[in-house]
Amino acid sequence: MSVGERPLPDETLERSLGLEAFGTDEDGVARGRMAVSDRVKQPFGIVHGGAYASLAESVTSRATYEEVGPGSGAFGQSNHTTFLRPVSAGTIDAVAHARHRGRTSWVWDVEMTDEQGRLCAISRLIIAVRPLEGVDGSGSRP
Amino acid sequence: MSVGERPLPDETLERSLGLEAFGTDEDGVARGRMAVSDRVKQPFGIVHGGAYASLAESVTSRATYEEVGPGSGAFGQSNHTTFLRPVSAGTIDAVAHARHRGRTSWVWDVEMTDEQGRLCAISRLIIAVRPLEGVDGSGSRP
Amino acid sequence: MSVGERPLPDETLERSLGLEAFGTDEDGVARGRMAVSDRVKQPFGIVHGGAYASLAESVTSRATYEEVGPGSGAFGQSNHTTFLRPVSAGTIDAVAHARHRGRTSWVWDVEMTDEQGRLCAISRLIIAVRPLEGVDGSGSRP
Amino acid sequence: MSVGERPLPDETLERSLGLEAFGTDEDGVARGRMAVSDRVKQPFGIVHGGAYASLAESVTSRATYEEVGPGSGAFGQSNHTTFLRPVSAGTIDAVAHARHRGRTSWVWDVEMTDEQGRLCAISRLIIAVRPLEGVDGSGSRP
Repeated sequence: MSVGERPLPDETLERSLGLEAFGTDEDGVARGRMAVSDRVKQPFGIVHGGAYASLAESVTSRATYEEVGPGSGAFGQSNHTTFLRPVSAGTIDAVAHARHRGRTSWVWDVEMTDEQGRLCAISRLIIAVRPLEGVDGSGSRP
Repeated sequence: MSVGERPLPDETLERSLGLEAFGTDEDGVARGRMAVSDRVKQPFGIVHGGAYASLAESVTSRATYEEVGPGSGAFGQSNHTTFLRPVSAGTIDAVAHARHRGRTSWVWDVEMTDEQGRLCAISRLIIAVRPLEGVDGSGSRP
Repeated sequence: MSVGERPLPDETLERSLGLEAFGTDEDGVARGRMAVSDRVKQPFGIVHGGAYASLAESVTSRATYEEVGPGSGAFGQSNHTTFLRPVSAGTIDAVAHARHRGRTSWVWDVEMTDEQGRLCAISRLIIAVRPLEGVDGSGSRP
Repeated sequence: MSVGERPLPDETLERSLGLEAFGTDEDGVARGRMAVSDRVKQPFGIVHGGAYASLAESVTSRATYEEVGPGSGAFGQSNHTTFLRPVSAGTIDAVAHARHRGRTSWVWDVEMTDEQGRLCAISRLIIAVRPLEGVDGSGSRP
């Protein structure tokens, strides 16, 4: 069963966590946002590291797919997120720049800031670009 | 306001995504699990990269805290997750080994496998260990 | 000018630093070694972080190329090295395991130990596999 | 034996590879440079991935040490270098920005470009800051 034939999920991680990936604006910058609700926190009340990683992954996967799809898919290959400052309220804004736009992979840098504009987390991602027919649930990543 | 004084969240990312971090067993291995429901998927129906990163972060943060807490906290500093195989059903099991147990940081390797035991994602994390009184919402990470 | 037509270097980084990459043995493990001479140290007298990264890169690039070459090349795409213990004498042994052998990229884990067998550094690498005719000095990485 | 008492090396990796780390200029940017001689190349004639990692490590370690030393040392903890474009001639310039200057660790981003100003490699590093008396050759990293 290919990705195209797989039933699309009713829920998604984006909806579970309240993430939004806005796509790429005219100057080539991709953006996203996450409200700091309890559902993105770890048990001590600060934003969970996985929430930043998720936000960065959604923003860059969507932005890559907007350019390479629908013939090809955009699949995260590597997500390295570094945490700089704990946040416990407000919103997190993500701004992503493509550092490399290759035929088979894109490299992205993402900066995430709190409502005061302070840098909270940064991510570097490799998004693999693959023809969509070659990827399915039983298959292997690039 | 210190972490200790901050109101604990009613919800958490762990609950939003259905992650479980089981702590460390007798032989020093930390484990966790995630059911592959729609709420951990990206829009094309496979597990979202951020879900793997979240699972790895929860398992290793909890396992570190179990040893250094409650006097000190365990805070993710770096989470590098590499995705090897798409998964669209079943469960994901995480197994984590500490590669370094320092006074101020621990280094962990996490392997995540599907129900057939196939490797789906691997993570390397640095978890910072800090006295709890020094970290608060307005402060900075290590 | 393609890689095949480029004049091969008389010296190499491997020779400058005294690195050896031994290739893959029968059980699929790739190995390498580095003597801890002054030429791999940083100014304070311990092994330079770049020396570990170099050793890991040489071992995994060579091992990947042994399998995919000579029709395809093996090119480092990402090298994430974590330093666990300073070393100032002896030798460093590297042992590398492929965690993924894809059509267009391989993922490797490398462990580097000192003469007492203590873990000093660990690396995770993505090695891109590309047809050799498509890569040249003026061209772009994958 | 502490770092201070260890005999300083006659040679260094910086000299073996021809790397220069210039320190931090007035606007807080750290810089370095590497000539693309054969001694920094891999066997196929392009710059070895470890050379970029070494350059990034030297530039950021030195720049951190300039601010925290001599009472404290600056030790690489994590070096993640991503390779974007092969280079076979000219020089490589490195420009590094500190993204976080913590009490116990600094986070740096490094961009490396060729003579035409094209981005060839990018690195993200965590440099640990530690009191110098606590680190010696038999001891453990942070």
